[in-house]
Amino acid sequence: MPQLRVGMIGYKFMGKAHSNAYRSLPMFFPNALKPEMSVICGRDGNAVQQAAAQLGWQESVSDWRTLINREDIDLIDINAPSDAHKEIALEAVRAGKHVFCEKPLALTLQDAREMLQAAEEAGVVHMVGFNYRFSPAVRLAKRLIESGRLGKLYHFRAFFLQDWILDPDFPLVWRLQKEVAGSGSHGDLGAHLIDLAHYLVGDIREVIGMSETFIKERPLASEMTGLSAKGSSNGPKGPVTVDDATLFLARFESGCIGSFEATRFAAGHRSTNSFEINGSLGSVRFDFERMNELEVYFTSDDEDVQGFRRVLATDPAHDYADAWWPPGHTIGFEHTFIHEMLELSTAVAEGRQPEPNFRDGVKCQAVLEAVEQSVDERRWVAISEM
Amino acid sequence: MPQLRVGMIGYKFMGKAHSNAYRSLPMFFPNALKPEMSVICGRDGNAVQQAAAQLGWQESVSDWRTLINREDIDLIDINAPSDAHKEIALEAVRAGKHVFCEKPLALTLQDAREMLQAAEEAGVVHMVGFNYRFSPAVRLAKRLIESGRLGKLYHFRAFFLQDWILDPDFPLVWRLQKEVAGSGSHGDLGAHLIDLAHYLVGDIREVIGMSETFIKERPLASEMTGLSAKGSSNGPKGPVTVDDATLFLARFESGCIGSFEATRFAAGHRSTNSFEINGSLGSVRFDFERMNELEVYFTSDDEDVQGFRRVLATDPAHDYADAWWPPGHTIGFEHTFIHEMLELSTAVAEGRQPEPNFRDGVKCQAVLEAVEQSVDERRWVAISEM
Amino acid sequence: MPQLRVGMIGYKFMGKAHSNAYRSLPMFFPNALKPEMSVICGRDGNAVQQAAAQLGWQESVSDWRTLINREDIDLIDINAPSDAHKEIALEAVRAGKHVFCEKPLALTLQDAREMLQAAEEAGVVHMVGFNYRFSPAVRLAKRLIESGRLGKLYHFRAFFLQDWILDPDFPLVWRLQKEVAGSGSHGDLGAHLIDLAHYLVGDIREVIGMSETFIKERPLASEMTGLSAKGSSNGPKGPVTVDDATLFLARFESGCIGSFEATRFAAGHRSTNSFEINGSLGSVRFDFERMNELEVYFTSDDEDVQGFRRVLATDPAHDYADAWWPPGHTIGFEHTFIHEMLELSTAVAEGRQPEPNFRDGVKCQAVLEAVEQSVDERRWVAISEM
Amino acid sequence: MPQLRVGMIGYKFMGKAHSNAYRSLPMFFPNALKPEMSVICGRDGNAVQQAAAQLGWQESVSDWRTLINREDIDLIDINAPSDAHKEIALEAVRAGKHVFCEKPLALTLQDAREMLQAAEEAGVVHMVGFNYRFSPAVRLAKRLIESGRLGKLYHFRAFFLQDWILDPDFPLVWRLQKEVAGSGSHGDLGAHLIDLAHYLVGDIREVIGMSETFIKERPLASEMTGLSAKGSSNGPKGPVTVDDATLFLARFESGCIGSFEATRFAAGHRSTNSFEINGSLGSVRFDFERMNELEVYFTSDDEDVQGFRRVLATDPAHDYADAWWPPGHTIGFEHTFIHEMLELSTAVAEGRQPEPNFRDGVKCQAVLEAVEQSVDERRWVAISEM
Repeated sequence: MPQLRVGMIGYKFMGKAHSNAYRSLPMFFPNALKPEMSVICGRDGNAVQQAAAQLGWQESVSDWRTLINREDIDLIDINAPSDAHKEIALEAVRAGKHVFCEKPLALTLQDAREMLQAAEEAGVVHMVGFNYRFSPAVRLAKRLIESGRLGKLYHFRAFFLQDWILDPDFPLVWRLQKEVAGSGSHGDLGAHLIDLAHYLVGDIREVIGMSETFIKERPLASEMTGLSAKGSSNGPKGPVTVDDATLFLARFESGCIGSFEATRFAAGHRSTNSFEINGSLGSVRFDFERMNELEVYFTSDDEDVQGFRRVLATDPAHDYADAWWPPGHTIGFEHTFIHEMLELSTAVAEGRQPEPNFRDGVKCQAVLEAVEQSVDERRWVAISEM
Repeated sequence: MPQLRVGMIGYKFMGKAHSNAYRSLPMFFPNALKPEMSVICGRDGNAVQQAAAQLGWQESVSDWRTLINREDIDLIDINAPSDAHKEIALEAVRAGKHVFCEKPLALTLQDAREMLQAAEEAGVVHMVGFNYRFSPAVRLAKRLIESGRLGKLYHFRAFFLQDWILDPDFPLVWRLQKEVAGSGSHGDLGAHLIDLAHYLVGDIREVIGMSETFIKERPLASEMTGLSAKGSSNGPKGPVTVDDATLFLARFESGCIGSFEATRFAAGHRSTNSFEINGSLGSVRFDFERMNELEVYFTSDDEDVQGFRRVLATDPAHDYADAWWPPGHTIGFEHTFIHEMLELSTAVAEGRQPEPNFRDGVKCQAVLEAVEQSVDERRWVAISEM
Repeated sequence: MPQLRVGMIGYKFMGKAHSNAYRSLPMFFPNALKPEMSVICGRDGNAVQQAAAQLGWQESVSDWRTLINREDIDLIDINAPSDAHKEIALEAVRAGKHVFCEKPLALTLQDAREMLQAAEEAGVVHMVGFNYRFSPAVRLAKRLIESGRLGKLYHFRAFFLQDWILDPDFPLVWRLQKEVAGSGSHGDLGAHLIDLAHYLVGDIREVIGMSETFIKERPLASEMTGLSAKGSSNGPKGPVTVDDATLFLARFESGCIGSFEATRFAAGHRSTNSFEINGSLGSVRFDFERMNELEVYFTSDDEDVQGFRRVLATDPAHDYADAWWPPGHTIGFEHTFIHEMLELSTAVAEGRQPEPNFRDGVKCQAVLEAVEQSVDERRWVAISEM
Repeated sequence: MPQLRVGMIGYKFMGKAHSNAYRSLPMFFPNALKPEMSVICGRDGNAVQQAAAQLGWQESVSDWRTLINREDIDLIDINAPSDAHKEIALEAVRAGKHVFCEKPLALTLQDAREMLQAAEEAGVVHMVGFNYRFSPAVRLAKRLIESGRLGKLYHFRAFFLQDWILDPDFPLVWRLQKEVAGSGSHGDLGAHLIDLAHYLVGDIREVIGMSETFIKERPLASEMTGLSAKGSSNGPKGPVTVDDATLFLARFESGCIGSFEATRFAAGHRSTNSFEINGSLGSVRFDFERMNELEVYFTSDDEDVQGFRRVLATDPAHDYADAWWPPGHTIGFEHTFIHEMLELSTAVAEGRQPEPNFRDGVKCQAVLEAVEQSVDERRWVAISEM
């Protein structure tokens, strides 16, 4: 009988979200294989010990290599900064562990491919953390598309708009450094949009993009946590080496056309992760700031009452809703992770690959890099070139 | 063959809206009987002469009695202040003229009844200016109800919220003086809600209300026009003798229950005239600030896509839409008057009574007064008592 | 040093929400006194044993009297059906236990007063479950009002609209039976509105109401859980003995006027718990279906940019936000209970009464009963009469 | 003293909108130079005679060349199909007439440049019909930007989404034929977005675009008017020679980056003409389906009440509002034309060029063609190349 004893590496923003998910799974999905919150790992021994206590882990360690080789661990959960994903994942799968890895899977497409290959050769379960797939409203969009209720898809348009670094004095946190983060808004936010596009519409054929770094230098960070940080505008500065905003146009294999925008400079948008899809029979619209809602339009509605419906995806007819509260009682950001861990746990129990897995991570990375190449070379780039 | 030579008494806010309606009718509804903009009348001869030129009237006069007795006039349009309605209307119908009268029909129910009786005895066409009935989105609500698509109606809830006298230094205009205006928010705004309730739901059986005058004294007005005016906060003050806000609960004859609120003290609401109706099979929602839209809900929608639809009432399937612009191209406040004059003109052409007519004005007045009595006597008042 | 070993009676909808709150408190508010999830109690031994396992309680019992007298319990959490509240609470406080009681505190005002008196005499901590106070957006409304940023309050208007019993074949669950539930929409939904009114605006002076039971008979329930249930439309029926909808008008002691509506017959509204408050300097608007948002209007905004702002109450400046996710990442229904338990735990730690406590429960009950009396006697009823 | 005797060529959708504007100008803007509705011109003599009667023109003719040379005409208004613009405009300016020309100015950039040059050499007043500039809410956006209240602009993103040809059986009207229309969604809808970008943000430096024709063949049209038409799905078909959708990315000279999308295949969007602009100090958002509203965000708002404000641009502080109705009383699509004609009339009276004029038409055409070239050559195209 399968077990799911978790060793988690990383304990900041995502570590908290994952911990809460492992912890909540048995209460709300009692039939799922229950994750054991065994070991949490971080470089700063004191900090990780404190995190273990707060987040509910049985044990804390500071050396991830030792953790990976422990026999009492079934799954390694990687939510350390992006530049550490590859090395940890490769070691973990070599040690025969299942791996859950936060997005982006790696800093480069080549790294991502190595990780996928290694995981497949090792025969372990692998998953990548595109959590937005697990919003009930997004699942509803997926069902409408799959069942043909939107018809042939013509348009996909998606935005991930934030404004947390709009202030030029916001300091140079790791997310603004290419060597740690890989890219800026593109890999952080755009990656989610690309995965949603893959999930909802299908494969992308070619792309052309545009990137911009509006603020070229920022104060060095003296302190940081989650998405917030402190620096001094009078202190020393360093160069921002990632994009503040990246936009691109895309053609899907199906003939659908798409536009994507990721930015951290959209004043007033704390975290607008939104998309709209237009098909021959209808449309859907989603905005994560109102994540319980999906707007839905059907051309087949009676002529005098055609219009976008605001569907609250909290009814029994909606995915996951039964596990939560009565209709009209909403859920939040963290619930996407609980549903994500449900898929992980179920896949382990059933001995299958979860979705999205490293294969989806690689696909996303291919598009990310194709966009970057199209920006550098100022031309359309086919995904097949990558 | 019928003619529609109009003599209009009053030339301010409503005078402008009516003039525009008469003027626009032939362009957008070329099959309608065309109104002749013959004579405009106002006490101030110079001002009314200027208004005639601006608003497109052939002639201006300052004595309404003479106007009423002219043979070359078929219809008297009364939009003078409310305290003048009765006298003018009685004279006009005695002279055999058709009458269009702005709401409220009169200052009292008894006056309104006299007007109705006189008009009926004279056999003229009579109409009262409840213009909101003529919004395409309201018409759509009416059709949904009449065709049974909302089922049995349970709830009607309506608000007319404004904030133009929120400032305690806003002066004591005529709309704040009982002897001229009859009542305050109740007769001005609540009257529209009551008429919409009659139109959409049916007759009201009993009511109980609550009124408040938040600001008891205001500076005397030195100048006023439309809904705006100027006064001096240091100058002399006078008592506000009408209600700033009136709310009431109601039972309809059909078993539906309702709540009504009219106020001029709702900060942020320039003119929110909104209602919602809940039936056994669906609901509708309307807000005049977004007058082209009706939100519509059906219980019969598929379980996973139930939600209020935002219907833009600009499609060919909607009343009046063909006369205007392509779908998605909206109309505004003034168009309700054009549609209203279409009904008036058509009724005259067809020799029938338009809707709403004095009968509706009397019904509205009965409810207004029943509410006032319920406020005074602190008890439920049946409309049948009135 | 205070302890918070909890014995919880009830394990359905509210039991799950409370369990999740106790369980989550230490992770998100690590400085709070940590509740021990000691014992869960329910009449059906097998079911409660299963609930204990799923919801994370150390022990389960089926006799609440024994539980109340255990020395290793500090707090009794009562979320059994409403008709059991009084007896349990009285016993609990007599045993010296702190008590958290779900709303409504009791079936009658007299019962509620007895409970308050007993709790005060026993000197225990007592709290009542008006969880909506603990939405960050509602806290923001409270701060705006308290700091005077809305000025003098003129209007309070509130709605709690649901549609879960719209279908006449929905069975006769306990919430539709007066002897168990006390009242229908009024006590279930209206109670929340009344508490929010007390919290945000202050004491109510007098009320007049209207009630309706649209569907008088329903099939007997064969099975029920949470807000859902099954029955047979062909089977035996029983009388609905509570209100389907209750509306009332109110005057506050401060001069503010209010209107309240609670209904379970508003098609399309799964759980619209909304209010709007208009003051001399601004307004706020809230809808629990979009619970992360507060709409805010200020009269002092520049003339050309006045309008309701959609504030997402997820910024560091908002209550509780720091404990959760970065700005723009929303929370849900269950979080109100976590915040509620934070207040409870903090009050126990600090040896003070939490807010809202039994005093607030009594105040709410007084208004509920005054409204019922006003419905029965068809007259205004002063709260001071109660 | 200048006169404005108008000869208008074309009498369908735009002809009606223009007629209404000329007709309404004197009533709502009595101080403006009054246009004389002298002559209307169309190829079908009977139809244009009927149009003259309905739309209020003194005379109708069927030969535009004669019209252009009449001495009693000061201005030629061109709203014939796009392929006729150039020839008429060139003749008109040669005859010394002022010219108002609907957009697009011409079918090609070269044609547009000839028209501008001819108009400048002739010294006449010339204007192009980008009517959306004249929405009060758009004017408010312009003022906020010009006064620096949005700071440095980072993002412009704009959509013009329609769905009127979503049905594959919708016939092959002239707007779908390249030789008459020049282009499809790009020139029809995208042109408006480009002009708004120029107006609000400034010059565009370079673009890259993507186009698609989703439905390649359609039934030949048997009848058409405005945007609606009839054909037979069984009858003969012809090729669609214009784009159904065109998207492009852009860099502005200022460093702002933009994305544009025009489509006629967005189910549920009757006419969503919307844009959002993000600057260092704030953002604005506009959607023509709610044209009276502008959403506005300021970073300088107090930390706890930051959010997009829904500003209803109907207050005295807003452009044109004084001419219309009290605050909160909205206007519609046709009003943009009345404001447009106000600018035209004022420019003629003051002997200056109106805005937007042929120079703006040329600028727009340059971007349109640069986008087309970028689509053909699959590369970024600089506007300076054109």
